[in-house]
Amino acid sequence: MAKAITNRSENYSQWYLDIVKRAGLADHSKVKGCMVIKPTGFAVWENMRDQLDRMFKETGHVNAYFPLFIPKSFLSREAEHVEGFAKECAVVTHHRLMNAPDGSGVVVDPEAKLEEELIIRPTSETIIWDTYKDWINSYRDLPLLINQWANVVRWEMRTRMFLRTAEFLWQEGHTAHATRQEAVEETLRMQQVYADFAENYMAMPVIKGIKTANERFAGADETYTIEALMQDGKALQAGTSHFLGQNFAKAFNVKFLSEENQEEYVWATSWGVSTRLLGGLIMTHSDDDGLVLPPKLAPTQVVIVPIPKPAPEIAEVADKIMAALKDKGITVKYDRDEKKRPGFKFAEHELKGIPVRLGIGKRDLEKKQVEVARRDTKEKNFVPIEGIAAYVEQLLEDIQNNLFNRAKQFREDHITKVDTFDEFKAVLKEKKEEHPESWGGGFISAHWDGTTETEIKIKELTKATIRCIPLDNEAEEGQCVLTGKPSTQRVLFAKAY
Amino acid sequence: MAKAITNRSENYSQWYLDIVKRAGLADHSKVKGCMVIKPTGFAVWENMRDQLDRMFKETGHVNAYFPLFIPKSFLSREAEHVEGFAKECAVVTHHRLMNAPDGSGVVVDPEAKLEEELIIRPTSETIIWDTYKDWINSYRDLPLLINQWANVVRWEMRTRMFLRTAEFLWQEGHTAHATRQEAVEETLRMQQVYADFAENYMAMPVIKGIKTANERFAGADETYTIEALMQDGKALQAGTSHFLGQNFAKAFNVKFLSEENQEEYVWATSWGVSTRLLGGLIMTHSDDDGLVLPPKLAPTQVVIVPIPKPAPEIAEVADKIMAALKDKGITVKYDRDEKKRPGFKFAEHELKGIPVRLGIGKRDLEKKQVEVARRDTKEKNFVPIEGIAAYVEQLLEDIQNNLFNRAKQFREDHITKVDTFDEFKAVLKEKKEEHPESWGGGFISAHWDGTTETEIKIKELTKATIRCIPLDNEAEEGQCVLTGKPSTQRVLFAKAY
Repeated sequence: MAKAITNRSENYSQWYLDIVKRAGLADHSKVKGCMVIKPTGFAVWENMRDQLDRMFKETGHVNAYFPLFIPKSFLSREAEHVEGFAKECAVVTHHRLMNAPDGSGVVVDPEAKLEEELIIRPTSETIIWDTYKDWINSYRDLPLLINQWANVVRWEMRTRMFLRTAEFLWQEGHTAHATRQEAVEETLRMQQVYADFAENYMAMPVIKGIKTANERFAGADETYTIEALMQDGKALQAGTSHFLGQNFAKAFNVKFLSEENQEEYVWATSWGVSTRLLGGLIMTHSDDDGLVLPPKLAPTQVVIVPIPKPAPEIAEVADKIMAALKDKGITVKYDRDEKKRPGFKFAEHELKGIPVRLGIGKRDLEKKQVEVARRDTKEKNFVPIEGIAAYVEQLLEDIQNNLFNRAKQFREDHITKVDTFDEFKAVLKEKKEEHPESWGGGFISAHWDGTTETEIKIKELTKATIRCIPLDNEAEEGQCVLTGKPSTQRVLFAKAY
Repeated sequence: MAKAITNRSENYSQWYLDIVKRAGLADHSKVKGCMVIKPTGFAVWENMRDQLDRMFKETGHVNAYFPLFIPKSFLSREAEHVEGFAKECAVVTHHRLMNAPDGSGVVVDPEAKLEEELIIRPTSETIIWDTYKDWINSYRDLPLLINQWANVVRWEMRTRMFLRTAEFLWQEGHTAHATRQEAVEETLRMQQVYADFAENYMAMPVIKGIKTANERFAGADETYTIEALMQDGKALQAGTSHFLGQNFAKAFNVKFLSEENQEEYVWATSWGVSTRLLGGLIMTHSDDDGLVLPPKLAPTQVVIVPIPKPAPEIAEVADKIMAALKDKGITVKYDRDEKKRPGFKFAEHELKGIPVRLGIGKRDLEKKQVEVARRDTKEKNFVPIEGIAAYVEQLLEDIQNNLFNRAKQFREDHITKVDTFDEFKAVLKEKKEEHPESWGGGFISAHWDGTTETEIKIKELTKATIRCIPLDNEAEEGQCVLTGKPSTQRVLFAKAY
C-alpha cells in the first residue's frame, strides 16, 4: 500500500487533512464551508456526545430543543451580542421557490419575501431568553438548567475541517439562576465538567483559565475556557463557559419574584463544546501513520486479524476471544476480508486508529498465544490466549493513560516563561525539525499590563493572542513584556486555531 | 386544582393543545410555525430516538451527518422532487448583517448576497446523493446503509404542535444498493422496523401499506407507509419508507462497476420518522385527565407520593422500594414536595402521564402495604411492600400491553367496509357523543378504480384520502364506490392529519 498520509514534518496541514479524509472521519461537501461527517467520524462524535450528555445529566441538567431560526430583531436586542455575530450570519429572506417565468429553471419567488428576516442560529441565547421570559416568574422556577444538542451556523470565510466550519454540531447549555453567586458557580462547574471530559475521555490535557475582556464571548461578563496544545505548538480553545450576568435577562426583560418578594433580573450562564473537539482529538494524539484514538472514545477498540487469512480454526479462537472481550464491554471486530494481505490490513487499522490489534496465525494457535500490537507506541508482543481478555482490558487502560501522559508531557515541555519581548518573539520564531514550516511556539507565559490595547498590539506584532489567565495562577510581580508597565501575574499567550 | 385540560368531547383540538402545554411537552415559539420542545417532551423523544437508533444499528446502519444547506441547483436536479418541495422552502440569500446607514438598526448587508441561494434541507436526498457520487465506484462500496438524525424545515402555512411544524426533528435513512431487489427489500425492512417500533414501544397499532401514486414521496417509485388511527377517528401517517428506484442516481449521475464489470446506476431507498410521532403518541393514549404514556417510553415510570406529606419513616421505605425498582431498570421518582397536598400531586402526575403511582401513608406502613394506582385504567389497589418491585415490573408490562390492545380494539372498531358512495359519505358524517364536532369517521375500506382522477375527486367531495393499500390485502372483486368501475381490492380511506 502506498503511504496513505503526508508526514507531519513535510506539511502539517496536509497531514491533518489526510487523516480526516483517509481515516473516514469527514469529507468536504459542495456547500461552501460545510463538511460531511462520515460514519467513522460520527461514531466518535456519538461517543463524545453520550459521555458529555451523561455528565450534564449527572450535574442536574435536562435537554430541550429551541428553534433553528432567530428573528433578526431578537439578535439585535443585546448590543454586544449582535456586534459579535452580525458579520457571519446566514439570513433567510424567502420561503418559496417558483419556476422562472422564462422557463430557465427554479428561482426564488419574490412574492414570498419574509416580513422579518430570520437568522440561522449562530448560538441560541436570544431565542432561549425570549422563551425563558414565559417560563420564569418566581424563584420557585429557578434554577433552570437546560442543555440543547444542535447545529449552528457561523459564516466563516476560512474554514478547516472540524476546527472551523460554517455549520457545526455542538451542545449549548443555557441556565438561569436567582443569584449572581449561583450563576458563577454554575459557570465554573461546567468548565470543570469540560476539563474532566477532555482529560479523562479525550486524554487531552487542558489548562483552565479565564479569558481577557478582548477574547470574551459577545454578551458575557466573563468567559471561562479550557485551552489545549496541539502537536504543532498551536493552542486550541476546546470549550468555553460564560457568565452572562444579567445582560440577556435585561435585553429580554426576564425578571422573577424573589423569596423576599422583590422583582429582580435573572442571572445567566451559557456553555458549549462542538465538533471542533474532534479536530483537537486528532491533532493531540495522531502520528505519521494515521489516526490515534483514546480507547474510551474509539468506536472499535480491538481488531482481530487472522494471519495470513481467515480460517475456521482461527475463527473459532477469535470467536471465544471476542465473546470474552464483549463481556467486559470492549468493542471488537474480526477482519474477515479474504482478499487483503495482513500487512495491508495492519496499515489500514493503524490509519483508522484502532487502539489494539490482535494477530492470530496457525503457529500462534499451536503456541496458544496471539500477537498484541498497541497503536500508541507500536509495540508488539506475544501474549497467552488464556487470560487475554483481562490483558487487553488492562492494556486499553494503559493506552488511555499513556496518551494522556504523553500529551501532558508535551504540553509541559512547551510552556516557556519569557520576561522580555525579544525572548517572546524568539520563542515564536523557533524552528522544530518535526515542524519546519508550521511550528507555533507553544504556550508563552509572560507578564502583561492588563490593557486591551497592549493585547491587540502584541497580536499585531506576533499573531499570538492571550489564550487565558490560568485559574491556578500564582501572584507574581513583574513587568509587561511589551510596555514594561507593572503586572501582578503571568498570562498564557499562543498562536491559536 | 382547577381542571387542567379541556375535555375531548368539548374541543378535541384544544384538548390536544392543553396536554402538549400542560404536561410540559412543548411550547409555541415566537418564530412562526416553530415550536420549543420542552424538557419532558424532549425526554420522551430521546427515548424514542434511542430505541430507533438501536434498531437501525441492529439492521446494519450507521449514522453520519450531511449539511443543513442544499444549493438551489441540487434541489432542481430531480424534477418531481423539486416540484414537491419548492413551495415550502426556507431560502438563505445573504451571509451578513450590518448597521443600517441611517442608524435605524441592523439590516441585511446587500453586498453579502450569495451567488447561489441555499435551501434549508426539507429532506436530504439531493445533498446526500451528490456526496454518494464520490463514495461509490464499485459493487464493493455497496450497500451503503446510512442514517442521519437532523432538523429539517418545510414552510407549512397551517401548523400544529408536533404534527406539522415548520422545523421538525427526524431521522432520514439513505441507502444505496447494487440491485433493484436489494433496495426493495431494504424499503420493506425499514417499514417493518417502523411498525415494530410503533407497536412494541409506542403501543400504537399501525397498518402497513403502500401509497397510491398521488400520495407518493416526490421522487419515489413507491412509498410504503405505516398508518395509525387517532382517537378522533382521523388517520396519522406515522412513518414512510421510499423505494427511489434509480431516480436520484440518474439525477446525480451515481454509477458503479458491477461484479460483471458493467457500469450501472445505483438503486436507492430513503425512510424517515419525525417528532410527529410524539403527536401520535399523545393522541393514541391520552384521556381527559392528561397525558398517558406507554411505560417503555415514559421518562419517569413510577412516582412515589408520601401521604399526606414527606416523613422520615416513609422516606426510609420509599428508599428501599426505589432501590429495588432501579435494580430492575425501572425509573422512579420520590415526590418530596412539602407544600402540595396529595390530591394536587395525584392530578399533576396523572396530567404528566406517569404510568404507575405508589402512595404511602403511615397506616400503610403499619399494614406493610402501599397503594398502587395505574394511569391507564385509573384502578387502585393495595399491594404488600414485600415483593413490590416484581409486582410493579409486571404491572408496567401489563400497562404497556393494555394500551396497545385498547388502541388496537379501537382501531378494529373503526374500520368500516362500505360498498356505495352514500355509505361512504354516511360514515364520514356520523357523529360521536365523545367527539360532537370533530369525529373523523375512522378508516373506510372501499373499492376504488385505481385512477388518480377518482382519488382526487373523492378527496374534493369528502376530504378523505387514500391512506394506503394494505400490504396484507386480500384480492376481492368489486366496484369503485365513486365510478362503479371494476376493482380487484379494497383500499383504506380516511380523513388524515
